[in-house]
Amino acid sequence: MTKLWQKDYELDAFVEQFTVGRDFELDQHLLNADCVASLAHATMLETIGILTKEELAVLKEGLVAIIRAHEQGAFPIARSDEDGHTAIENALTEKCGAAGKKIHTGRSRNDQVIVATRLYARSYLLALLEHGLTLVDNLLNFAEEHQKVPMPGRTHMQIAMPSSVGLWAGAYAEQLLDDLLLVENAYRINNQSPLGSAASYGVPLPLDRELVADLLGFAKVQNNVLYANNSRGKMESIILDAVDQVVLTLSKLAQDLILFSMPEFQYFTLPDNLCSGSSIMPQKKNPCGLELVRAKAATVSACAFQIKGIIKALPSGYNRDFQETKEPFLRGANTGLACVQIMDLCIRKVKVNPEKLKAGFIPEIYATDAALELVAQGVPFRDAYREVGLNLDRLEARDPEATIMAKTYTGTTGNLGLDKARAAAAALRAFAQAEEAKIDAKVSALVGIPVKLFAPEI
Amino acid sequence: MTKLWQKDYELDAFVEQFTVGRDFELDQHLLNADCVASLAHATMLETIGILTKEELAVLKEGLVAIIRAHEQGAFPIARSDEDGHTAIENALTEKCGAAGKKIHTGRSRNDQVIVATRLYARSYLLALLEHGLTLVDNLLNFAEEHQKVPMPGRTHMQIAMPSSVGLWAGAYAEQLLDDLLLVENAYRINNQSPLGSAASYGVPLPLDRELVADLLGFAKVQNNVLYANNSRGKMESIILDAVDQVVLTLSKLAQDLILFSMPEFQYFTLPDNLCSGSSIMPQKKNPCGLELVRAKAATVSACAFQIKGIIKALPSGYNRDFQETKEPFLRGANTGLACVQIMDLCIRKVKVNPEKLKAGFIPEIYATDAALELVAQGVPFRDAYREVGLNLDRLEARDPEATIMAKTYTGTTGNLGLDKARAAAAALRAFAQAEEAKIDAKVSALVGIPVKLFAPEI
Amino acid sequence: MTKLWQKDYELDAFVEQFTVGRDFELDQHLLNADCVASLAHATMLETIGILTKEELAVLKEGLVAIIRAHEQGAFPIARSDEDGHTAIENALTEKCGAAGKKIHTGRSRNDQVIVATRLYARSYLLALLEHGLTLVDNLLNFAEEHQKVPMPGRTHMQIAMPSSVGLWAGAYAEQLLDDLLLVENAYRINNQSPLGSAASYGVPLPLDRELVADLLGFAKVQNNVLYANNSRGKMESIILDAVDQVVLTLSKLAQDLILFSMPEFQYFTLPDNLCSGSSIMPQKKNPCGLELVRAKAATVSACAFQIKGIIKALPSGYNRDFQETKEPFLRGANTGLACVQIMDLCIRKVKVNPEKLKAGFIPEIYATDAALELVAQGVPFRDAYREVGLNLDRLEARDPEATIMAKTYTGTTGNLGLDKARAAAAALRAFAQAEEAKIDAKVSALVGIPVKLFAPEI
Amino acid sequence: MTKLWQKDYELDAFVEQFTVGRDFELDQHLLNADCVASLAHATMLETIGILTKEELAVLKEGLVAIIRAHEQGAFPIARSDEDGHTAIENALTEKCGAAGKKIHTGRSRNDQVIVATRLYARSYLLALLEHGLTLVDNLLNFAEEHQKVPMPGRTHMQIAMPSSVGLWAGAYAEQLLDDLLLVENAYRINNQSPLGSAASYGVPLPLDRELVADLLGFAKVQNNVLYANNSRGKMESIILDAVDQVVLTLSKLAQDLILFSMPEFQYFTLPDNLCSGSSIMPQKKNPCGLELVRAKAATVSACAFQIKGIIKALPSGYNRDFQETKEPFLRGANTGLACVQIMDLCIRKVKVNPEKLKAGFIPEIYATDAALELVAQGVPFRDAYREVGLNLDRLEARDPEATIMAKTYTGTTGNLGLDKARAAAAALRAFAQAEEAKIDAKVSALVGIPVKLFAPEI
Repeated sequence: MTKLWQKDYELDAFVEQFTVGRDFELDQHLLNADCVASLAHATMLETIGILTKEELAVLKEGLVAIIRAHEQGAFPIARSDEDGHTAIENALTEKCGAAGKKIHTGRSRNDQVIVATRLYARSYLLALLEHGLTLVDNLLNFAEEHQKVPMPGRTHMQIAMPSSVGLWAGAYAEQLLDDLLLVENAYRINNQSPLGSAASYGVPLPLDRELVADLLGFAKVQNNVLYANNSRGKMESIILDAVDQVVLTLSKLAQDLILFSMPEFQYFTLPDNLCSGSSIMPQKKNPCGLELVRAKAATVSACAFQIKGIIKALPSGYNRDFQETKEPFLRGANTGLACVQIMDLCIRKVKVNPEKLKAGFIPEIYATDAALELVAQGVPFRDAYREVGLNLDRLEARDPEATIMAKTYTGTTGNLGLDKARAAAAALRAFAQAEEAKIDAKVSALVGIPVKLFAPEI
Repeated sequence: MTKLWQKDYELDAFVEQFTVGRDFELDQHLLNADCVASLAHATMLETIGILTKEELAVLKEGLVAIIRAHEQGAFPIARSDEDGHTAIENALTEKCGAAGKKIHTGRSRNDQVIVATRLYARSYLLALLEHGLTLVDNLLNFAEEHQKVPMPGRTHMQIAMPSSVGLWAGAYAEQLLDDLLLVENAYRINNQSPLGSAASYGVPLPLDRELVADLLGFAKVQNNVLYANNSRGKMESIILDAVDQVVLTLSKLAQDLILFSMPEFQYFTLPDNLCSGSSIMPQKKNPCGLELVRAKAATVSACAFQIKGIIKALPSGYNRDFQETKEPFLRGANTGLACVQIMDLCIRKVKVNPEKLKAGFIPEIYATDAALELVAQGVPFRDAYREVGLNLDRLEARDPEATIMAKTYTGTTGNLGLDKARAAAAALRAFAQAEEAKIDAKVSALVGIPVKLFAPEI
Repeated sequence: MTKLWQKDYELDAFVEQFTVGRDFELDQHLLNADCVASLAHATMLETIGILTKEELAVLKEGLVAIIRAHEQGAFPIARSDEDGHTAIENALTEKCGAAGKKIHTGRSRNDQVIVATRLYARSYLLALLEHGLTLVDNLLNFAEEHQKVPMPGRTHMQIAMPSSVGLWAGAYAEQLLDDLLLVENAYRINNQSPLGSAASYGVPLPLDRELVADLLGFAKVQNNVLYANNSRGKMESIILDAVDQVVLTLSKLAQDLILFSMPEFQYFTLPDNLCSGSSIMPQKKNPCGLELVRAKAATVSACAFQIKGIIKALPSGYNRDFQETKEPFLRGANTGLACVQIMDLCIRKVKVNPEKLKAGFIPEIYATDAALELVAQGVPFRDAYREVGLNLDRLEARDPEATIMAKTYTGTTGNLGLDKARAAAAALRAFAQAEEAKIDAKVSALVGIPVKLFAPEI
Repeated sequence: MTKLWQKDYELDAFVEQFTVGRDFELDQHLLNADCVASLAHATMLETIGILTKEELAVLKEGLVAIIRAHEQGAFPIARSDEDGHTAIENALTEKCGAAGKKIHTGRSRNDQVIVATRLYARSYLLALLEHGLTLVDNLLNFAEEHQKVPMPGRTHMQIAMPSSVGLWAGAYAEQLLDDLLLVENAYRINNQSPLGSAASYGVPLPLDRELVADLLGFAKVQNNVLYANNSRGKMESIILDAVDQVVLTLSKLAQDLILFSMPEFQYFTLPDNLCSGSSIMPQKKNPCGLELVRAKAATVSACAFQIKGIIKALPSGYNRDFQETKEPFLRGANTGLACVQIMDLCIRKVKVNPEKLKAGFIPEIYATDAALELVAQGVPFRDAYREVGLNLDRLEARDPEATIMAKTYTGTTGNLGLDKARAAAAALRAFAQAEEAKIDAKVSALVGIPVKLFAPEI
């Protein structure tokens, strides 16, 4: 196919293969977003007299046809197309004639990548928020259901003090909620329209960037056109840093679940249908999903790290290096979302075994409680600590349930305060849903049909 | 010195050295924060009857004395103390007798580290915001002053299209502003009081966590006590991810400045007193500060990466691994702030050489403008592009200033929109200053004297 | 399809999709290696009486048929197969009946992954060595051809002292040679046979591991069966650390070439057919290949980092986390090789412009030479340095060629010592070729036809 | 103090502080190496007529005095000195007059950093090899002592198949041995003399680089002077990549020990004097050393990553960025060595509890053995696997010791092959000791007294 930048020489075949890389495959993920942004751009070009109404109509028809073809898997992008932008422009030119050759007026491919990635990321981040909040809700439900189930509290992985399944699950819910604040913040920063940047320096045409931003439902225009360009990679790594924190939290939760479902603990049991077997050992049922969540925390970190490594000390203006940020962004984002979904499934299905949990309440677990009882009798804490420490063998078994219910101040086993987290989760969900509704409305108004700007790929 | 956890055996000397690490040095940075938090804790203990008014008074006196000594460099922490918490408790016990032995009631050292780090980080983040905003302001001033100075716009580091020094500097100002939104968000997430977590599972005493949070000026209590603990490392890495984005932006700016002050460009000249010489080459004046900013982007990334590597898949509850997060946190944070300050100095002092900048306006720089002029005459863009591409030798020199002023839509060289960034910067600064005032007031009210919770270390 | 570990329940569909991941695609790369290793295993099973001669013959026929089908792209692996190992066993069982069900005797899928990865890596590393050495040779040729072409030597990117294109290119050749020593070392460590590890703990059958190792051309058996398993991820990251160093060197070379082919330097000119254009700017010819090499250094680092993050603190024995190391290994390895090939193409094609290079010889470049001339007259160096430094305006232009030829001690511009590097490169190439010949002979003897164990994927 | 590059202006104070960084502290570690290299350089200068015999004698006396002062902690480096090189030259100039001003003839500070780091790294790597080999030996002893102690073999952290403490420990010994091959290789690559590179481009003096290399005991001259310079950071990261692999292995070992000394397992017991207590929980004895080893794997990885991030795409020739590689190199190297020593202490002291280990031999652990017994009766493996899998409840307890001794092929529980690892360890130790002897002899010959080029800092 013709390249957008076709010259009077042929690019070396190996260089072409190397520079195209996997773009032609990856751009399938961005194709809808590219078409929608192209339509907004064309709509604006009509208002400033670059396109006629008829040309716009023809282009709109062409773009909608591409979206429809794509959704049925029928808009392939060939390696010789280089990327989705070229495939779209070539298809339009073939279908719409001169109008197709005009659509690139006042923009660059780089412009297209940025805006398509923003649109994709925007919908992705809302999906991540919603799935993340569902996991938060399920963790809170889990915490509530098991709030009176004792669980040995550990430090240094050793038995430390009385705790509960409710405290354990509630901790993860709150941690995830804080992570989701990072996701929300990334959403806000990402939600600005870069179109009009062209090759980084604008063009001598009266583009109406505010109109384009409004058509696409962006909260604002990303003002400086060079910044719009320089933010490539940066925006992606801001987003992945947020995803990374989510997945780091999940890796900890996965490790706890793997550990405490070992036969020596059996605090938790994963249902069979979440476990894989071994090709050689007939008896094995393995928590493979959890192990992969644990591993994939490193994957998401690596994706963020890769992008940061690429943009570090890169001179300003577009550089081809940016292309190499697309793959880790898509991979990191989709990995993160899949981990949330898997963990949600596990939390909804995992079985709690109270008797096994209580078996961990060996007398030593009460040592600190015993010291604090001496404190209540007026012994200075440090003396009480030493007293108990020298007489550990005098510690006796107690009633685990009573012990955990006896701690009643804010955030302790007897006072989990789950409602606070519930309220925060609900507020964040309301935000996400309102944003989603707004985007859907804007896109439908522009295109005439609803368009999926993000589709998860596992 | 006596350890807080002293047992009836001696720790192996090498193990002790290994496990103590540099804590005894690093805790100097957290000492004020630890004392202030200890006083809030003690004040609360008095309200619930653990301490008498007299004991509280004595402890307050002791803690203020430690703060004063520390500020004069006269509160050394010995390696045998293990850490600052021990040094403080030992000093208090020596000075205040039984009251000293009571202050640890209902808390753990881990509790102390968390809260001290939060207090330190809170003030650090405000300092970073303020210095960052100063740099933003200076970049905006720089952009305004040089808004009509032409600068070759580059892509792929090659000459691409007309641009301006104003656009270049404005891009960095806006980028930095977005980075500072990450810093602000990290501030908000960090601003919750962990005290009361104890060893992760709370204690059977009626601690009043809300009172402590209020005394310390926190926005809220971090509810779940296990989460308070599990968030160690996470909070630090959330903060460093934000700092990392700031420094990544600076590394790009540094690279541009290094590049464009090379003798072959001379767009910019750094004043002599910002440059170091060579030990062997008499003529050299080197932009060492900028080179180090470029390098230190990797340092901050590495600090964040180290912390994430430590907490990945770490089982819940306190683990000693957390200790290893302190050093990279302090290093990363201070490195980031110093880079901001150095860059601010450079931007304030760098000289712009308009003639050298204009020399880059070779005729080819106008190729896209020429193509778009054909578009204005009705030629479809893709045809115009090819037409110009085949006749590059016909391009002629133009007036650079006129060219850059001819682009007038939002965010382009003739319409930088600096006021929008100025307004955003002012709003963020107002937030930071209000927070700082609130913290100062709370701490002064608690301690009776103002206390620096963060002191930059370069 | 039937899973190897089929149980009496169905795995949750989403969990299955998540845990299978991209294995079914990635295993195409390892399929030949898996077949070859399976044949070696079967050959050994016959010698210990598990298989009959007939069964072995049937299995061999089946495996050869799979290899042939695969090489024609006609051995698809379905997602429902989970992975290549299952696809192979299922195909064999279908074709060979009971013999197919016996081939897994005494091994696990994990065993298969390890050995297939070793075989793949072994051939990959030899290919990397050979392409790397070709690049070394071409750098040395380039250095020789341009050994008398002056080039401004820079420090801090500023003009420092006289240098030459020969010194510049020779430096990269020697650096790459040292990197290739890491590749060679990784090859040696990788070259041990893991088969017989089974699920990490061996099996109660008299497996003959030495025979398998010999059939496959391994230098030795990896002795401890648990270590064989624990080394998953480790071996991959050892290899990628070596590749990373190669690509880091290339990123430096790419940066130099990008920088010095900017219009302000024009030291080097890349031929048109290695450059891509812009979709909006008609005049642009961009060094995209070099920019991507620069970016891909971060990619390879990220791949190594991802694997290390996965294996850090992972308990011993097989864990599903290992699966997540396959993708970064294949990606990192292939990325590294492609970068070497692109750079080789660039070095072979790049044009040197002596006049532009000489234009950088401003008088200040001779300051150190001038100081050392004073030293030759007996002035202490530090005094000579200050003397020259205060009189920089008295420095005069000199003859660049004469200057660079005047430095004649080991490794300087007048004495590049290219022959030493040539000899080292030749020795390493002889090693690589001998290893390749040995492997080819062993595999041909085992399978009856030559089999490609590694095929580059760009 | 006077800077080596003193100009007629004052460097901005904040810039000075920023650019000096911690060099003045860090250079204490490199001071001996710097003095020794300086003496070799001076010795060579005398042979080419730059220094008189008397000047050399005076300089030697001065350098030996500095070494002696340093070893008594009496050679402070002030921040105003910038670094150790300046402190040394200033001290020499003060003491030796004109000779002091001559010692810098034909070298740069960068030259000094490189050679001092090489000398330091060389001795460091030998120390790491020796301590690493001691740990290997102790693991092998441990494996031998406990070779008949059964241990549940795990996959997915679940009970899988019979294994032994011997197999477990032997796996780590062999893994570590392979890691040490990377250390050895790093040693070889590092062992080349960079001196003579000067500011990267040599000098117009007849320096005798071979003589310097020989005086310092290097295996060869690093030929190309620009490569000598460009290899800064690269050499450090090559070394840290090797250290990283060592520590990654230790992190796995630490995780196993932490896990299996939990009260629910008690396979291993760490002696009290390797455990720290808690400030709040009187009963706790925590495996802090092991937890820190686990954490510090991330630290070493981060150090390597930091350095690679710094040198990625850095233009050739000296850049100040290199300075930022010193701190992570020293930190990473020393962290790695300390981890080896701590782990060695743990392995020598840890207690094995055979009864607890045997308690893990639940009947299911024999499922694979049972399937393979059916295989021995002629049942195809896949059928046997299904048969056993459907009848897991029929599995019976067996004798653990008998089971592990029944596996007798290479590398299994009944045939650990410890002698092979012992032989490899001995050969590597012989290499390290021979190198150390050679270095000691060379340095003593040059300086007249033995000098420690590396002193561990924990």
